[in-house]
Amino acid sequence: MKMSVFGTGFAGQTIAEKLFQLGHSVMVGTRDIESLLKKDQKDYIGRPPFKEWHAANKGIELGNYKEAAAFGEMIINATNGAGTIEAFESAGEENLNNKVVLDISNPLDFSKGMPPSFFVCNTDSLGETLQRTFPKMKVVKSLNTVNAYVMVNPGLLSEDTNIFISGNDPSAKEEVKNLLMSFGWKEKYLIDLGDISTARGTEQLVAVWVRLMGALNTPMFNFKIVKGNLPQ
Amino acid sequence: MKMSVFGTGFAGQTIAEKLFQLGHSVMVGTRDIESLLKKDQKDYIGRPPFKEWHAANKGIELGNYKEAAAFGEMIINATNGAGTIEAFESAGEENLNNKVVLDISNPLDFSKGMPPSFFVCNTDSLGETLQRTFPKMKVVKSLNTVNAYVMVNPGLLSEDTNIFISGNDPSAKEEVKNLLMSFGWKEKYLIDLGDISTARGTEQLVAVWVRLMGALNTPMFNFKIVKGNLPQ
Repeated sequence: MKMSVFGTGFAGQTIAEKLFQLGHSVMVGTRDIESLLKKDQKDYIGRPPFKEWHAANKGIELGNYKEAAAFGEMIINATNGAGTIEAFESAGEENLNNKVVLDISNPLDFSKGMPPSFFVCNTDSLGETLQRTFPKMKVVKSLNTVNAYVMVNPGLLSEDTNIFISGNDPSAKEEVKNLLMSFGWKEKYLIDLGDISTARGTEQLVAVWVRLMGALNTPMFNFKIVKGNLPQ
Repeated sequence: MKMSVFGTGFAGQTIAEKLFQLGHSVMVGTRDIESLLKKDQKDYIGRPPFKEWHAANKGIELGNYKEAAAFGEMIINATNGAGTIEAFESAGEENLNNKVVLDISNPLDFSKGMPPSFFVCNTDSLGETLQRTFPKMKVVKSLNTVNAYVMVNPGLLSEDTNIFISGNDPSAKEEVKNLLMSFGWKEKYLIDLGDISTARGTEQLVAVWVRLMGALNTPMFNFKIVKGNLPQ
């Protein structure tokens, strides 16, 4: 399948590699190709500049957001939350309409220091904002509650864990479920929370996630929902 | 130990019963005893009026917030989040200062319908508000991420799960940890997230909790943190 990945950071690279390994045709989309390929500094978490990854992943195409949107049958939004709407606006509605958009981003605001806060939350979410801004896209929110390594390889964790799905379009959610299963997620651990407004729940879950990363001293964890019975 | 429980709803009743079973002296605190005992309607989830519970739990004392605060060596805040600050203000600082306050409430706003939103979140929390308003109390946020049945009986769930602890005072957190262990929580599943500002994480976790309750059709569940290793 032709897959586009918006965003060239750690999450975008990790998802793009996985999709390519699985046999998809993949194009990574960015705002400005030339300036991206000029960067020769490590990023804020010490990862090498994008051009090194690009050179090591020759099979993965690179385009601007418009080219990537036109290329993909499905689009995965791995941009920084703060740049999400602008990225999609620059892609052009004609390249986006009717497509399934898997939104893995979070509306994190780093301007007030660490841990980040949200630039939208509580009575709205980034997933809803994206769906509202592009009503003909089929936005499905998922994977935004785990680190990118876990997104594409849930078996790195010591037990099966849950992943959440939010979206308005049932068939789009089925397509995303199939993609997640191809990444290694087991069907019985996928929890469909309901329409895209339930993205408020999973985006705000990141508030405890970032604090757990600090307390546990690792980003390699996820939540498993354990059920029980009412007292007799 | 002398324990006060602020709040006479489901959570307050459940915690008070458990504390009494464990051998503590317990006083439940409320705003207005007379009006509480006059109520003869079931509550919004169909539970019988408070006076029936009160009659069935003769060993548990009832007082106004001031009396309950004066009584308790530790105070458990099980009020509605919206009424928390007012409850503590009416209790009088002289009855609160230097005491450990286990805050199990959440800042839920039901005015916009279900599921609830928050009246404080993101860059602040109810736990912080309570600590800031009464700087000489030792506020510890915990148990606010599970249903009251699970709070006092984690063994109702099919596996061990995690509970989070936030607070500024290390010895107050130790006291709360010991209380949680007396409820059945295992020490290795208690996660100290850090100071009281980390209550932002656990309070906002309730956004996904209420949506999971809908998706799973039960309030009987909790989160287990599953860890793993970075890819090789």
